Amino acid sequence: MRAEIIAVGSELLTPDHCDTNSLLITEKMNEAGFAVYLKSVVGDRSDDIAALLRAALDRSAFVLICGGLGPTEDDLTRRAVAEALGRPLSISAPLLENLRALFARRGYPMRPINERQAEVIEGAQVLENSVGTAPGLWLEERGVQIVLLPGPPRELSPMLENHVLPRALELGAGRHLVKRSFRILGMTESEVDSRIAPIYTQYPQVDTTILASRGYIGIRMHQWVRQGEQAGAIEELSGRIDLTLGSAVFTRTDQPLEEVIGRLLRESGRTLAVAESCTAGMIGSAITRVPGSSDYFLGGVLCYSNDVKERLCGVPGDLLRRHGAVSVEVAEALANGVRLVAGSSTGLSVTGIAGPGGGSPEKPVGLVYVGLADGSRVAHLRRVLPGDRALIRERASYAALAFLYQHMVAETGGGRT
Amino acid sequence: MRAEIIAVGSELLTPDHCDTNSLLITEKMNEAGFAVYLKSVVGDRSDDIAALLRAALDRSAFVLICGGLGPTEDDLTRRAVAEALGRPLSISAPLLENLRALFARRGYPMRPINERQAEVIEGAQVLENSVGTAPGLWLEERGVQIVLLPGPPRELSPMLENHVLPRALELGAGRHLVKRSFRILGMTESEVDSRIAPIYTQYPQVDTTILASRGYIGIRMHQWVRQGEQAGAIEELSGRIDLTLGSAVFTRTDQPLEEVIGRLLRESGRTLAVAESCTAGMIGSAITRVPGSSDYFLGGVLCYSNDVKERLCGVPGDLLRRHGAVSVEVAEALANGVRLVAGSSTGLSVTGIAGPGGGSPEKPVGLVYVGLADGSRVAHLRRVLPGDRALIRERASYAALAFLYQHMVAETGGGRT
Repeated sequence: MRAEIIAVGSELLTPDHCDTNSLLITEKMNEAGFAVYLKSVVGDRSDDIAALLRAALDRSAFVLICGGLGPTEDDLTRRAVAEALGRPLSISAPLLENLRALFARRGYPMRPINERQAEVIEGAQVLENSVGTAPGLWLEERGVQIVLLPGPPRELSPMLENHVLPRALELGAGRHLVKRSFRILGMTESEVDSRIAPIYTQYPQVDTTILASRGYIGIRMHQWVRQGEQAGAIEELSGRIDLTLGSAVFTRTDQPLEEVIGRLLRESGRTLAVAESCTAGMIGSAITRVPGSSDYFLGGVLCYSNDVKERLCGVPGDLLRRHGAVSVEVAEALANGVRLVAGSSTGLSVTGIAGPGGGSPEKPVGLVYVGLADGSRVAHLRRVLPGDRALIRERASYAALAFLYQHMVAETGGGRT
Repeated sequence: MRAEIIAVGSELLTPDHCDTNSLLITEKMNEAGFAVYLKSVVGDRSDDIAALLRAALDRSAFVLICGGLGPTEDDLTRRAVAEALGRPLSISAPLLENLRALFARRGYPMRPINERQAEVIEGAQVLENSVGTAPGLWLEERGVQIVLLPGPPRELSPMLENHVLPRALELGAGRHLVKRSFRILGMTESEVDSRIAPIYTQYPQVDTTILASRGYIGIRMHQWVRQGEQAGAIEELSGRIDLTLGSAVFTRTDQPLEEVIGRLLRESGRTLAVAESCTAGMIGSAITRVPGSSDYFLGGVLCYSNDVKERLCGVPGDLLRRHGAVSVEVAEALANGVRLVAGSSTGLSVTGIAGPGGGSPEKPVGLVYVGLADGSRVAHLRRVLPGDRALIRERASYAALAFLYQHMVAETGGGRT
């Protein structure tokens, strides 16, 4: 059963914007057993959208159209689809009621153009939007499933999960995709590949991909399995890879590193505080993405200036003058200092030169020190990170989180999920 | 003259890979005066590629096909195009010679499958590949230009620049694209639309798009202008929109808000420190994305726990107990407190309930206070932000940056770029 995706939005036809929504949609369609064999991007023009839909009806079993469901003049998807199918469009009273209530709750004025988002194509079922104002629509035409989805990823994602995936599964492609994945710290992409290629090449029925991702190396495996059959190959393969890579694997469930760290902190009864110089909040904001992180994260200091390093983290001015802000000594003093001022059991620090200015032959742009203090010992990590300012800051944050993870795993002996 | 792009590659139909080559191609086609109105992604299947090309011949003046020119079994573009056009494919002796010389120079053995890259479709002109082994091809069929391009960006990019752009310019679309854009704070997408729709609908020759983006509303305008003509309409339209929206426009050059804020801080000789509770570093990391931000950003405190609010920002424990951490009083005390401990002229604070837990009827999830202190006065902003934890934190950061911007603009009287 072949599915195709149509992304609507003139901005997606400029040199500045990619269609990334189709990645989310593809993931969910694959889970339901449908392969995506064609994707299109079309602008905010009624005729183009309608022509594309008419062509799609002749070739696909499933057509997912994403974007153009907003309230403004250039949101044309509902009208174009209604026109292509020759079906009328009318305001749904219950949807209008919902919209009014939503605007009232948020305290925004509801304007006449907003009423468009209550328009429904004849014969369509409404897919609830739990996050925004644009509901989705699901239609059938000559046996082809047509789904209209909102463009903002935050609205799209829950609608896919809660409304599209269950219905697509019911439609029954008769097979499903079995996936396994690992995330790995402390190895490069080619190191991972040379370790596991001798294994995964023995399982041609499993599609194995190694991807350098932000802060880790990912291994993704998938295998199409017919109803009633076992996914024996992928189970065996993932078991063997797991054994080979050992504690370098920090998750087998796509759990972000900050969640794994949170669990380790919670389980060991520790609390954390951070002192961030060049990352200036990137570590704190990552750690606190996890709900309930206030149980183990106390806070920290953005010690951007030397003055703040002294005043708020208790780093002796003399140490700063002798070794410079970017040094082993200051990284360790920051980690221990923030631990003491915040009253946490563990302190984590980063100090480095993110560039583009501020580098020297002895201390080049990209030089970063991570410090770690837990009351019984103080440790550090030195790295010279490649990339531009944004990349160096990002990599410095990941290096600090990885250092903390490895420290805790070494102490507690593991904890993968 | 309408151009369309077809990207070929099964990996572009997985959840892990986007087609980004079309961005490069779009940029060059726009330079040559062609609008890209449709993009497709298709897998490595001959039938699908051929069907798509046949459809394209009926609707476009220019068809650019990218990828699938390699030597392996799944590189099918040359064959599929030859089949769709009913033209024979044959080995070009000079190309084969070139290939052999290239392999010899690199010291790689040339295998029989490599000879495929010397295949040329009847009537095609060869586009030299200065970097890799796959030459491009340029054909004309029933007045439609068809261009076959290699997939690897490092091969694609010079071929676009050196061979496609000059020929496309010669074909003489005789026009170019003029762009203008605004970014706006403090209004919703539909508020912006109802303010400016009466204006932009008077300029049908300008394509105007309103987009809710992260932390702001964007307006993008573009107009195709013929050689020798003036871009009068877009100049007039953007001038009128600018007047209408006034200081709600924080940039006319796509400058990020943190850069605009940085410029205003620098110009007014101020320094900034932040106290972040629920955002826990998101504001600090945004401000410091800007190179040279150490000139005006001193640092701050991640005051996640109440204890850290007291210890490091000097908020009286009594105030916290009486009003709670999420209150006007504590927001203002944090802003002023961090200003004093960090020694900055301005202090900015955020305290709120990001959820999912911790809400109550009086203080629901999403309640956020922003505090601002500049030595002469203390101000605050109260918001109940919709969304999940991630969205509330993101919106709280944007609200704080917007509040700071508006405060500075009100004081200094503008500063747009």
